[in-house]
Amino acid sequence: MAFPGRDKLAVILLSGGLDSMVAAGLAQEQGFRLAALTIDYGQRHRRELESARAIAAMLGTERHQILSLDLSTFGGSALTSDTPVPKEGVGADIPVTYVPARNIVFLSLTLAWAEALDARDIFIGVNALDYSGYPDCRPVFITQFEVMANMGTKAGAEGERFQIHAPLQHMRKSQIAAEALRLQLDPAKSWSCYDPQADGRPCGLCDSCRLRREGFAQIGHADPLDYATNL
Amino acid sequence: MAFPGRDKLAVILLSGGLDSMVAAGLAQEQGFRLAALTIDYGQRHRRELESARAIAAMLGTERHQILSLDLSTFGGSALTSDTPVPKEGVGADIPVTYVPARNIVFLSLTLAWAEALDARDIFIGVNALDYSGYPDCRPVFITQFEVMANMGTKAGAEGERFQIHAPLQHMRKSQIAAEALRLQLDPAKSWSCYDPQADGRPCGLCDSCRLRREGFAQIGHADPLDYATNL
Repeated sequence: MAFPGRDKLAVILLSGGLDSMVAAGLAQEQGFRLAALTIDYGQRHRRELESARAIAAMLGTERHQILSLDLSTFGGSALTSDTPVPKEGVGADIPVTYVPARNIVFLSLTLAWAEALDARDIFIGVNALDYSGYPDCRPVFITQFEVMANMGTKAGAEGERFQIHAPLQHMRKSQIAAEALRLQLDPAKSWSCYDPQADGRPCGLCDSCRLRREGFAQIGHADPLDYATNL
Repeated sequence: MAFPGRDKLAVILLSGGLDSMVAAGLAQEQGFRLAALTIDYGQRHRRELESARAIAAMLGTERHQILSLDLSTFGGSALTSDTPVPKEGVGADIPVTYVPARNIVFLSLTLAWAEALDARDIFIGVNALDYSGYPDCRPVFITQFEVMANMGTKAGAEGERFQIHAPLQHMRKSQIAAEALRLQLDPAKSWSCYDPQADGRPCGLCDSCRLRREGFAQIGHADPLDYATNL
């Protein structure tokens, strides 16, 4: 196993979900030291912030910053408004849980902190196989963001290259679940549900719950979360 | 005069400075209706927020939103920390007033609001002639941002093209000053200084003051602002 990140600081966008937890674990496995950035954006599943804290503590990240940015003032998404979260299963179209330009905004903030910290590596847990079809999770977007980042920053303009790492990009959800177990990252520490129930449990039926549950089911390992609804 | 923007809503990034005021005026001249976004990012010249409000009122923008985003927690700039603002004149290097990835973050937020509002046109007052050499003001960056924006958004992925308008891009500061007068936009409403003095006056010596004063001087029109220091 090579350690391309040895002694280097990377910034990870840590939502508190399974994917960003595994992306962080993979970054550490490559030898990177981590600064974790979590965005409190007015999401209805603010519960994930608590998981982000627990994951940062579990991983021993050198820094963890939770930045407030109220995207609910913009609206336009079921995740930042009272629009109901769909429960009927993952469809073909981009769903109403899409938050306008969310990953563009979040990657920009991650880039800003990385440049201020003199870090050149950024990790994000997007994947584009078992996902909801969000345009800002696609490899073509990540590639373009990296090009833009290297034109619009001082470090980039001076020839020090930023690199956006998306190690889960081509993994199925079942592979991501398996990676969590291989890396000994407790899945119970992470939170994926878009629609936390009044009793504190994940709903079990939103896209995010379904994709996660199916991923664990496919590797024959029960997701340790206590879901409000069985599939 | 053509009106390409007739009946269309555009989002303008309105800092409160001379440049974004003129960019907003040019957008209106093209027939666009305006929603203005101002970012309260912990800048030492928060005084500009007051000017942004005055400009939005003067222009009669349909909406004006001031969004809080504390970039001072990231640091890395004289504009968001106690590092002194340079006063010795515009140099060849990118100065310490560069805020890491600022325009990337701000354009991302503007894009997010535009998508939520169903607007496809974004205006920003960057210029790349009489400026401080910030990489995120260069035309090559604006072009790349537009490409990225159209890959990473739902609207863009569905073929509705976002367009980033930077109408001042190739203007000298003197032309921008002349445009303000032509459009009957009172320069006294705008604020450019990075280092407001204790008595409330602009310093007169930072890059931003120097470029602005020289621009007005070149067209033989006194900048109406009362500067703390004469050049």
